[in-house]
Amino acid sequence: MVPEAQVGEEMHKLASRLFPICRSITGSGVRETLTMLQEYVPLTLNEVPSGTPVFDWIVPREWNIRDAYILDPQGNKIVDFKRNNLHIVSYSVPIDVELSLAELQKHLYSLPEQPDAIPYVTSYYEEQWGFCLTHTERTKLKNGSYRVVIDSDLKNGSLTYGELIIPGQTEKEIFISTYICHPSMANNELSGPVVTTFLAQWLARMPRRYTYRIVFIPETIGSITYLSSHADAMKRNTIAGFNMTCMGDERAYSFLPSRAGNSLSDRVARTVLSHRHPEYVEYSFLERGSDERQYCSPGVDLPIVSIMRSKYNTFPEYHTSLDNLTFVTAEGLRSSYETMKDCLLLIEQNYFYQATNLGEPQMGRRGLYPTLGGKVPEGQVRMMMHILAYADGSNDVASLSSIIGVAPWELYPALGTLRSAGLIRG
Amino acid sequence: MVPEAQVGEEMHKLASRLFPICRSITGSGVRETLTMLQEYVPLTLNEVPSGTPVFDWIVPREWNIRDAYILDPQGNKIVDFKRNNLHIVSYSVPIDVELSLAELQKHLYSLPEQPDAIPYVTSYYEEQWGFCLTHTERTKLKNGSYRVVIDSDLKNGSLTYGELIIPGQTEKEIFISTYICHPSMANNELSGPVVTTFLAQWLARMPRRYTYRIVFIPETIGSITYLSSHADAMKRNTIAGFNMTCMGDERAYSFLPSRAGNSLSDRVARTVLSHRHPEYVEYSFLERGSDERQYCSPGVDLPIVSIMRSKYNTFPEYHTSLDNLTFVTAEGLRSSYETMKDCLLLIEQNYFYQATNLGEPQMGRRGLYPTLGGKVPEGQVRMMMHILAYADGSNDVASLSSIIGVAPWELYPALGTLRSAGLIRG
Amino acid sequence: MVPEAQVGEEMHKLASRLFPICRSITGSGVRETLTMLQEYVPLTLNEVPSGTPVFDWIVPREWNIRDAYILDPQGNKIVDFKRNNLHIVSYSVPIDVELSLAELQKHLYSLPEQPDAIPYVTSYYEEQWGFCLTHTERTKLKNGSYRVVIDSDLKNGSLTYGELIIPGQTEKEIFISTYICHPSMANNELSGPVVTTFLAQWLARMPRRYTYRIVFIPETIGSITYLSSHADAMKRNTIAGFNMTCMGDERAYSFLPSRAGNSLSDRVARTVLSHRHPEYVEYSFLERGSDERQYCSPGVDLPIVSIMRSKYNTFPEYHTSLDNLTFVTAEGLRSSYETMKDCLLLIEQNYFYQATNLGEPQMGRRGLYPTLGGKVPEGQVRMMMHILAYADGSNDVASLSSIIGVAPWELYPALGTLRSAGLIRG
Repeated sequence: MVPEAQVGEEMHKLASRLFPICRSITGSGVRETLTMLQEYVPLTLNEVPSGTPVFDWIVPREWNIRDAYILDPQGNKIVDFKRNNLHIVSYSVPIDVELSLAELQKHLYSLPEQPDAIPYVTSYYEEQWGFCLTHTERTKLKNGSYRVVIDSDLKNGSLTYGELIIPGQTEKEIFISTYICHPSMANNELSGPVVTTFLAQWLARMPRRYTYRIVFIPETIGSITYLSSHADAMKRNTIAGFNMTCMGDERAYSFLPSRAGNSLSDRVARTVLSHRHPEYVEYSFLERGSDERQYCSPGVDLPIVSIMRSKYNTFPEYHTSLDNLTFVTAEGLRSSYETMKDCLLLIEQNYFYQATNLGEPQMGRRGLYPTLGGKVPEGQVRMMMHILAYADGSNDVASLSSIIGVAPWELYPALGTLRSAGLIRG
Repeated sequence: MVPEAQVGEEMHKLASRLFPICRSITGSGVRETLTMLQEYVPLTLNEVPSGTPVFDWIVPREWNIRDAYILDPQGNKIVDFKRNNLHIVSYSVPIDVELSLAELQKHLYSLPEQPDAIPYVTSYYEEQWGFCLTHTERTKLKNGSYRVVIDSDLKNGSLTYGELIIPGQTEKEIFISTYICHPSMANNELSGPVVTTFLAQWLARMPRRYTYRIVFIPETIGSITYLSSHADAMKRNTIAGFNMTCMGDERAYSFLPSRAGNSLSDRVARTVLSHRHPEYVEYSFLERGSDERQYCSPGVDLPIVSIMRSKYNTFPEYHTSLDNLTFVTAEGLRSSYETMKDCLLLIEQNYFYQATNLGEPQMGRRGLYPTLGGKVPEGQVRMMMHILAYADGSNDVASLSSIIGVAPWELYPALGTLRSAGLIRG
Repeated sequence: MVPEAQVGEEMHKLASRLFPICRSITGSGVRETLTMLQEYVPLTLNEVPSGTPVFDWIVPREWNIRDAYILDPQGNKIVDFKRNNLHIVSYSVPIDVELSLAELQKHLYSLPEQPDAIPYVTSYYEEQWGFCLTHTERTKLKNGSYRVVIDSDLKNGSLTYGELIIPGQTEKEIFISTYICHPSMANNELSGPVVTTFLAQWLARMPRRYTYRIVFIPETIGSITYLSSHADAMKRNTIAGFNMTCMGDERAYSFLPSRAGNSLSDRVARTVLSHRHPEYVEYSFLERGSDERQYCSPGVDLPIVSIMRSKYNTFPEYHTSLDNLTFVTAEGLRSSYETMKDCLLLIEQNYFYQATNLGEPQMGRRGLYPTLGGKVPEGQVRMMMHILAYADGSNDVASLSSIIGVAPWELYPALGTLRSAGLIRG
């Protein structure tokens, strides 16, 4: 067991091991990733065959790639998939041709405004091929004949995802989802899988009221696939959930609410963030962009939120080669991990307490009140009296935190004392 | 059919034709007005006999006037109804007497602070007589004997109103009410009848979901009379409604909400105004002053609002001879007409859409999504995804407009595309 | 009967008579206080034996004190209960010993930051003894042997409270509670009992819709004792209530809402304060500190609020000898009395009115409307039209006051006129 003090470094190490793998929405990169994660947590791997109808979609053919490069007119390998897997447009079909520069240009992608970044481009559902490169490299290309080789295949296979159910005392579930379909980028997306993995380790050794359903899936098609066979049970049982993404850098926290906006997940996330990271930025659901698009869709309506550092589509490194293991740090990962723990602890502790007496109980004879009167009580005594005043069965701990104006963890000792004394029940 | 580009001018022309007629709450001026409107729209004229009980009221005797003037001591006609029908207090009883200036003064009305304006004064329910004149004219009057002649009569007859039902696909109705009881004033009130007339022409040639109930009535007694025989059906069927008044000048838009304040009419009016005329002023229902006083009264509770330019009782020209056809312009009338069309179009389009799939549909295979991924979609694609995300059957188009933060008309193309593709149903 | 103009002075006189009595939560001081109040209002005195279980508490033994003093090494009486009853810690056990200064110090209480104030200290539920003195006196004490005498006893007896039921036309009740357990302090707490006494006199001679339940009790243990035998009936019948405390100084008004925060009491108090004393300070229920702690506790949930001047625990004189009859004034008491009358009058008048007609009634034929039209009505006419517009059975007078934006007492004449004319019913 990794000591909590080293979790940040351990997570960063895992990210470093996963980083070089070429992931896409299907294929051996996904399997290799999930197999590596099985060293940490007992994931079940599931394979869904190409062609399976999932809601409005069909599981696509499986894509695998072995090599891809461009040779310049002098035969120099100028763009090489083996040096950076972002160089290839994901789901590129196999090819081996000679082209003029003009023809090649139609298949090249670069970012004039970030000339040293390789962009990340995909084409899952249309047969195409393409290469991504820095704009600096691109502008150096001279006229002549280029040879393009892509050694990939796109054929029937399956979509792979990992699943872990950590049972609790009740069938009610917390759902945690992250995605493993991005090639060599760190914040979006290795931070989500890495934090989720270590959070699952922590959950497994914690006493748990709730059952935890944790999935490692390809984004969009993966969440649709998973929902298509699990949505009914999930709608019945899920009381809260988190989509884990962009959790590894050190910039300000971001929060993307659920579509409903006021679910338990939303309330818990806002409570924790407002006390731990009050500078956090709350986005609108209009700015969504990950699997909450499926989880919160009409008729699915799961209570899923995202707690992030730099939100996808807002930071300059997003979807480029600049989103690397320097941008993502051990400290960034550790802080997200701790924040998620605070959220899950609050959900676990989040009883609707009810005072067992009418009127205030006599705290004094229980040794819970200063014996000398004359001034208003302070500190823990005041906290206990506030809890008793609002413990009417309609306020959960998140509400008590909001009403009393203190962090939930500041309430836990007083709640424990009152519960032990039989003065509240939950 | 008038081309839409000329509607403003045509409305101003109609206002000019109606302007000279001496209207009151009953009498030949009302009939002459409605008959002229029948040249434009197939109004039904209704006559309700004097003495008919209508709610707490009784339909008054009919008032008609042929002439009225004051002769000065030298026999000069100094105040002449035939030059401006505002000179006579509406419902003045007949008289033909000689009076001293002191006695005459008790029957004169002028505005010291607007010395060149003739005020508009009525006395419908108490037998009186009086003349209105500019304060400038009044201060010139010298002592001596004045002859006062009012050739009017006040006898049993009827109250006249016009009604037009434009049937739609359902029995559910939009109610549009305007009033035709004011003598020669333009904004308050010929703008309402004139815009209503051209709006009715437009409605008649539009495909319609809803039935339109349109009335041209005298204010207060007319709306009470109409409600006394139609309130039950209207309460059952009316989903939205507008009281049409003060719509012809070019100053900032005004909005008077319904008493409830959150009806469909309110939401639609605020949506349209906030996008078309964001500088509009929202008044409180406490500042009401027209037929919403009856339509929104307790137990009637119809969802009636007013979209105005300069609101009655707030502009200096109000209820004086300064409210004329210079103050009301073709452009002012046209803009109100267009704004009302936007409101009615929104009501017609205002379905509660429901996405037909669980999860996002696969837009790509329908040609509705860029095939190359990597960045968040924009423009129409983004609009469609937002609509799908919120099409849960609880949001109508007015709500979608508010949630997504775009004008409803910017949603119509995307809604049409999604509907045609079978991805939403309403 | 005291003329209303002299009520302030009479209340201050009563406070002066009550001031010297040494009150605590039980004992002869409470009885003497209640007996004196019986000269003003027909209170019933109730005795609850020591040892009686009341909710989570037990009625304590009765404490009585005859004398207490400290003799300095020279035999001078340096602290003397007979000069100021704050010198003794309430519920001090009897003692007669010689002590060194060092040992004596453990039993002394003073306020270094208010060196000329004697603090108020209690120890109801732990057997202790102690003396309170000014810090100035304390710092003068020299080493030597001190004799300490407390001639008190703490034995089985009873807890005493006063109760007054003033019947109304219905069983529905207004609850008024104040406390009589503080020794010689004026604002906290003689102002509450004194204003309550005179308010009870006024109520007894007023026509009343509601029954008034008025109690004079010791704080905390008294309200718990009273609730333990009356809570069920009170929960059934109480529509509003006030905890009367800190009502005698002349500083800004304070308002402590009920726990629910939106009860009739809250609405009425805010309505009256916002019109009479718009500079009032609204506190959070988190800043509670008196018997609302019991009355608003979970499962009791009575609609009890406090209208105060300087709120307990916020003013420098609080719980010291500086809270005296100079700080509390006739004018301060009078203003609180008037404010409470405004609240009770509003509750008595607080019907949910319903207009009896559909549409506006014809005010003119009832002489309630100017006969000459043309401008919007003002003053009383406008007020009546507003009331009629909102008299839909869902708005009580407190709501009408808020909607129309006028003080409730400005509505009473118009409400009376409309009710007499049969145009509204409540």
